Amino acid sequence: MAQILADRRDIDFVLYEQLKVEELAKHKPFADFNRKAVDLIVSEARNLAVKEILPTQVDGDRIGAHFANGAVTMPTSFHKAWKALVDGEWLAMSDDAEWGGQGMPHTVASAATDYLMGANFAFMLTAGLTHGAGKLVEKLGTDKQKELYLQKLYSGEWCGTMLLTEAEAGSDVGALSATATPNPDGTYSITGNKIFISAGEHDLVPNIIHPVLARIEGAPAGTAGISMFLVPKFRVNDDGSLGEFNDVVCTGIEEKMGIHGNATCSLSLGSKGQCIGTLLGEPNKGMRGMFMMMNEARLMVGSEGLACASTSYLYAVNYARTRVQSRHLLKGADKSAPSVPIIQHPDVRRMLMTMKCYVEGMRSLGYFVSHCMDRNHVATQAEEKARTQALIDLLIPIAKGYVTERAFEVCSLGVQVYGGYGYCREFPVEQLLRDVRITAIYEGTNGIQALDLIGRKLSQNNGQAIQDLFASMKSAISNAQDLARTAPVAARLATALARLETVTTHMTTTMQSDPMTGSAHAFTFMEAVGDMVMAWMLLWRANLAAAALQAGAKEKDSAFYEGQIMSAEFYTRNLLPVTLGRMEAILGASSIANDIPEDAFGGK
Amino acid sequence: MAQILADRRDIDFVLYEQLKVEELAKHKPFADFNRKAVDLIVSEARNLAVKEILPTQVDGDRIGAHFANGAVTMPTSFHKAWKALVDGEWLAMSDDAEWGGQGMPHTVASAATDYLMGANFAFMLTAGLTHGAGKLVEKLGTDKQKELYLQKLYSGEWCGTMLLTEAEAGSDVGALSATATPNPDGTYSITGNKIFISAGEHDLVPNIIHPVLARIEGAPAGTAGISMFLVPKFRVNDDGSLGEFNDVVCTGIEEKMGIHGNATCSLSLGSKGQCIGTLLGEPNKGMRGMFMMMNEARLMVGSEGLACASTSYLYAVNYARTRVQSRHLLKGADKSAPSVPIIQHPDVRRMLMTMKCYVEGMRSLGYFVSHCMDRNHVATQAEEKARTQALIDLLIPIAKGYVTERAFEVCSLGVQVYGGYGYCREFPVEQLLRDVRITAIYEGTNGIQALDLIGRKLSQNNGQAIQDLFASMKSAISNAQDLARTAPVAARLATALARLETVTTHMTTTMQSDPMTGSAHAFTFMEAVGDMVMAWMLLWRANLAAAALQAGAKEKDSAFYEGQIMSAEFYTRNLLPVTLGRMEAILGASSIANDIPEDAFGGK
Repeated sequence: MAQILADRRDIDFVLYEQLKVEELAKHKPFADFNRKAVDLIVSEARNLAVKEILPTQVDGDRIGAHFANGAVTMPTSFHKAWKALVDGEWLAMSDDAEWGGQGMPHTVASAATDYLMGANFAFMLTAGLTHGAGKLVEKLGTDKQKELYLQKLYSGEWCGTMLLTEAEAGSDVGALSATATPNPDGTYSITGNKIFISAGEHDLVPNIIHPVLARIEGAPAGTAGISMFLVPKFRVNDDGSLGEFNDVVCTGIEEKMGIHGNATCSLSLGSKGQCIGTLLGEPNKGMRGMFMMMNEARLMVGSEGLACASTSYLYAVNYARTRVQSRHLLKGADKSAPSVPIIQHPDVRRMLMTMKCYVEGMRSLGYFVSHCMDRNHVATQAEEKARTQALIDLLIPIAKGYVTERAFEVCSLGVQVYGGYGYCREFPVEQLLRDVRITAIYEGTNGIQALDLIGRKLSQNNGQAIQDLFASMKSAISNAQDLARTAPVAARLATALARLETVTTHMTTTMQSDPMTGSAHAFTFMEAVGDMVMAWMLLWRANLAAAALQAGAKEKDSAFYEGQIMSAEFYTRNLLPVTLGRMEAILGASSIANDIPEDAFGGK
Repeated sequence: MAQILADRRDIDFVLYEQLKVEELAKHKPFADFNRKAVDLIVSEARNLAVKEILPTQVDGDRIGAHFANGAVTMPTSFHKAWKALVDGEWLAMSDDAEWGGQGMPHTVASAATDYLMGANFAFMLTAGLTHGAGKLVEKLGTDKQKELYLQKLYSGEWCGTMLLTEAEAGSDVGALSATATPNPDGTYSITGNKIFISAGEHDLVPNIIHPVLARIEGAPAGTAGISMFLVPKFRVNDDGSLGEFNDVVCTGIEEKMGIHGNATCSLSLGSKGQCIGTLLGEPNKGMRGMFMMMNEARLMVGSEGLACASTSYLYAVNYARTRVQSRHLLKGADKSAPSVPIIQHPDVRRMLMTMKCYVEGMRSLGYFVSHCMDRNHVATQAEEKARTQALIDLLIPIAKGYVTERAFEVCSLGVQVYGGYGYCREFPVEQLLRDVRITAIYEGTNGIQALDLIGRKLSQNNGQAIQDLFASMKSAISNAQDLARTAPVAARLATALARLETVTTHMTTTMQSDPMTGSAHAFTFMEAVGDMVMAWMLLWRANLAAAALQAGAKEKDSAFYEGQIMSAEFYTRNLLPVTLGRMEAILGASSIANDIPEDAFGGK
């Protein structure tokens, strides 16, 4: 049977061979997660994804979220899938059991997420936001706030969101103007208009809890004056039961290019003066809460990119196996030769190999970042905690910004493999392309990710994190030395890495001496680092595969292992030279984009 | 006032400064087309585009083509726009006056098309197909066929299409199975099912004329047995009046990702045995007719790509001028500094510069190919005719395949500049991205274009055409020698060109010795050649601009000229190094994509 959404063999490879996830079970918090348990979790996630969530994919796109009179109605299949998600306790996979979480390693949760997101990320986004809101309550909430909200969020009995953006405050969060006025009882009256609120209103659950960024009256301008509040759609009585409507009104939903299965809402808070919130965390420290959630949220967006790319790849590869069109190239002149499946045509193979490389590289990267979180969690030494955290922070802009850029390319290739059919709704790949396009925009545009990488992450601990990253790459290169099959791959990676080290030094100094020029190359630098991370992941995979083949892999595994070596070969020979070109462009340090007079852009 | 669709200053620059279009008026066929006439034509095209066609853009997407009971209904605004197009005689701009054409140079028609396509290419596609059908009748038709159909097609009184694709015959045209049975009166009874027929059925005009590819009973297999027939929707009486329905039934239209303003039809021919066609051209020579139309059709698709990219760019640049968000980078620490328009942010400028370079390069390329057609038309020497024709043939896969690839990237950048708003229907850029995606697929996928380039075009006349192309590039490089502003640009181009010459020799020999490996790099080679053509066009433009500035350009022109030099600088410093990387990848001659065992793609 054809694999759909994600290739189980590939997931198992990353979990057990690359990241050796069972070793986490040696640590107390993860003691329950032996291989058998992990296998079961992944299988159950796959079942849920295929049986319950996948049917919401097309419904979400065709029926979509429906807005009328302040209410948003979701398709019937969404209600059924939400119930299954809640019943299976899939919302708080990695959270503490004390609050209803499953306590599983993030690495394992990544694998489950791979399937769940692949089936319909517009649906899973609602779950992800609910979890994020819960996490904020867990980390910043008072005992009372936890009592009232936390378990209901982690269980999915209620949903959560994040109210950040306003019409004039998008990438510039500090420009927001929602206001909080203190009441005598310690609560706050909230007023403001928020836009682009994913899952801001819907009928899947009886209550929605909104963490809201707003300014307490008299607070400083900019981000230093932003606080966070917990604002439920319906007020919650002391005993946890639902109270009055809290004056959070959905005034409309966006018509979008994709993810129609998630309502993007405009919310008006307190237009009748009846919206009450409670402070979450300290006054004026709202951004700290945001930053706390940022890594998780951005990693989730990266996993959305992977999910779309992986699904598009599997559809494309299986379509290419069955779609018969034209003779084999070497038999072009033989009119009696039969037409062949298009997977035999070199240009189709180029597309499929490109897709395969990125999907595998992205999967390894996403799971690896999760694995770093697990290692951070079980680390006993402060130094290891700091190092793993720095590596996570460094990789987040790659795992979000780079991954979603390439995911869009992969999904576009998926359409191309299908040809004219790819452009038609009857086939699944055009929806994936429309859906995935948002991932490069929300949760910090990819331009913002690139600036985060060069602005904050590169200079952290005097650049220790990126040195650690380079050390990991060098270790993979050195592991290839005794492997005939991957030594040539490693040699290409070594050349490119030496160049990347030069480029990194160059970017670091340019950001000091001429930040305008540095910033004009930020995106290309993110691409270069990301390309190299992909190369590293593919070499790591190929080393394991080469060793396994050398040791005499089972017949049924050998094609998979061959495929790993082929990916690394293809990537370093066909795609890595382009990365080296990007690096040269960065070293060219052109300031043209900044120098051009505004009028010279024309169009006036 | 902001320019929309296309920047008039840029169009004038290409027409008058780059291609010196008035010089064509020295030749008798174009004697009427002096500068005043050309100015008027471009202005009128712009007026028509903005006033009549642009309103169909949103209607086409939101209302779209509506199918019911075999009939396709187009939005009201489409009827109005079609009437304006017909009244203005815009359908046969470059055709002979004998048949109702305007006889204008293709170069001038390109400028008019720039506006018309920019306003709504889904609408203009119907016009383009109508013209193409007319051209086939003009070139291949009998006197009677011309009398009955030609002027009505060129005027737009009736519409035309092209019936080629069948469910099992897409890229592989030779696999088609529609059948033609000779009747005693010399006509043919046609049966078959065609799919993906753009504008195959609609209510804009009373009759639709379908050139149909089909096989005369007993004809050889493959392309050698394909003939072309003229099949009207309603039969046409001897006096030109409409007769009976001709059993051409629209059985449905595709739901697509975009271009909803053009019905993509499934047509059933002769299901009741009542579909009569007449042979167009010779029996079994149908492919010759197709090839006759191929250059024009592919150039048209390229112009669709340019149109979307140009429109997206102008929207983005003007949005970036007005959207205020975040402080200037150099004042990031100064909390009292005001927020600035996002056009001041380096990463936004990177995106806009990238868009600008491609739009300008594509425009010059498209017009240049048209200009070659004009030069070919007026050429008196056989050698010049042959050379210009070979250059056109060589550049067609670039003008279609390369241009539409980059157009998709440009339209995606347009969405990104808008941020979250870019993903919403309220703003125009997401539609352009959805619409433009088809251009990489239809009229020969871009993979087919790449194979055409390396398979047919590169080896034509022992590679003389590409040597001529290189010579043109060298001429631009040498023109820069006395221009201080462009000499550095030219030096970069010279380095890259030397490498491209090596790569071209390599590809030529590889296609002989190992066509599987060569074909696996065909797409990258098309990208490399296309990238270099862009660089050449930008250097050509910059040379003219530098000379004009040196000669003391008027104040109002200097920003534009500066912009030309900046484009060439940006492109050769920021993007050309990536092209060099692509060339290295080609020289690496990796056969991995072909070598990987099919099972190793996974997904089974």
